[in-house]
Amino acid sequence: MAEITIERILALQAAYIRCIDSNELEARPDFFLDQCLYVVTSAENHKQGFEGGIIYADTKGMLIDRIAALREANVYEKQSYRHILGLPSVMKNGADTVETETPFMVVRIMHDGDSSIFATGVYLDTLQAAGNDVKFAKRIVVCDSSRIDTLMALPL
Amino acid sequence: MAEITIERILALQAAYIRCIDSNELEARPDFFLDQCLYVVTSAENHKQGFEGGIIYADTKGMLIDRIAALREANVYEKQSYRHILGLPSVMKNGADTVETETPFMVVRIMHDGDSSIFATGVYLDTLQAAGNDVKFAKRIVVCDSSRIDTLMALPL
Amino acid sequence: MAEITIERILALQAAYIRCIDSNELEARPDFFLDQCLYVVTSAENHKQGFEGGIIYADTKGMLIDRIAALREANVYEKQSYRHILGLPSVMKNGADTVETETPFMVVRIMHDGDSSIFATGVYLDTLQAAGNDVKFAKRIVVCDSSRIDTLMALPL
Repeated sequence: MAEITIERILALQAAYIRCIDSNELEARPDFFLDQCLYVVTSAENHKQGFEGGIIYADTKGMLIDRIAALREANVYEKQSYRHILGLPSVMKNGADTVETETPFMVVRIMHDGDSSIFATGVYLDTLQAAGNDVKFAKRIVVCDSSRIDTLMALPL
Repeated sequence: MAEITIERILALQAAYIRCIDSNELEARPDFFLDQCLYVVTSAENHKQGFEGGIIYADTKGMLIDRIAALREANVYEKQSYRHILGLPSVMKNGADTVETETPFMVVRIMHDGDSSIFATGVYLDTLQAAGNDVKFAKRIVVCDSSRIDTLMALPL
Repeated sequence: MAEITIERILALQAAYIRCIDSNELEARPDFFLDQCLYVVTSAENHKQGFEGGIIYADTKGMLIDRIAALREANVYEKQSYRHILGLPSVMKNGADTVETETPFMVVRIMHDGDSSIFATGVYLDTLQAAGNDVKFAKRIVVCDSSRIDTLMALPL
């Protein structure tokens, strides 16, 4: 089993956003374990302990199912996105899993060149070794803004 | 004494901004040595060699004293902030201390969801081992903009 | 020859943008090999396989020649810039070279304090050991926006 070093954590985080920003959405589910939890929620909801979110998936299959919807939404046709990650904090370093918190920002670039901040927040992740890889057992995406319904088409 | 590896530098930088963005201000003074220097200034002032700044503290006690002011200012009530750090440059690697420069950006998120760039700049840090920890002996926060008086309530 | 570890990759990336944002443009060509490739292009052009770009240099000498133009453009007089890098992805790790992709964002700070997103994109780099250093054999700067002609004065 792969040891979850800081190098691997950095590599996983970088590879994940690269996959999205390069529009390789089909590769995205493979960053998750088969049994996983992927939730997009707001800081407000998260603080109040609500487990639900705007987006909720608890199997890799659900993430695969979403690809078609993302492709239909044509999210990359009229604009593009750029994720910038801050440095991850390792919160808990267990035997099999590691918990990290990683701040993120997403910039949206319109075709006319205008760029604006689309979303900011923090990834609350539980990472687990899976063979030679490290994968997400859990990714809770906590968006700073409560106005995130329009985000739904974009993977975070 | 802790050796100041690049891993520890990354971890310290990440933990510091996490503390602020998670609104755990009471934990912030512990990132500094008892005798320390914390200054927030502008690039303009810094270039001209002025040692003062908008905010100046030279003991950990002064940083503790500021917490009440920060809490009174209720800086997190009406908006939230997200620090995104770039990669640190190690400028000097001495026997006991390490000097680093780390670019930063702070995004402000209003409750209605509008996000804007609040501040950018660079942290000029002197890090020192303290027992098993690495702490700030010095943090000079050089803001790119000269219009930073309104920043005073927000820790940088 | 220097081994190209992840630590060295992080250090190189950090040092490069520090050089630009600190207005030490004269030091910038030294980040490149004598025979190198430096191209600034748009995502649109890059996707279509165009090799040219807004800016094109294939020797270190050409980068040195550009310094005077940059100085004449006085790009740092009326505003300043802040590069924020995301985490690099190592795409290929060969015997002599390493290929990485690193997302970037540049914020422009006007003298009146207004800050805006100036450019986002990704650095496609080929790094090579050169004695004790690691240098750019190739840096393709792919800007997300197609509206980048106004960028020409600013090194990316």
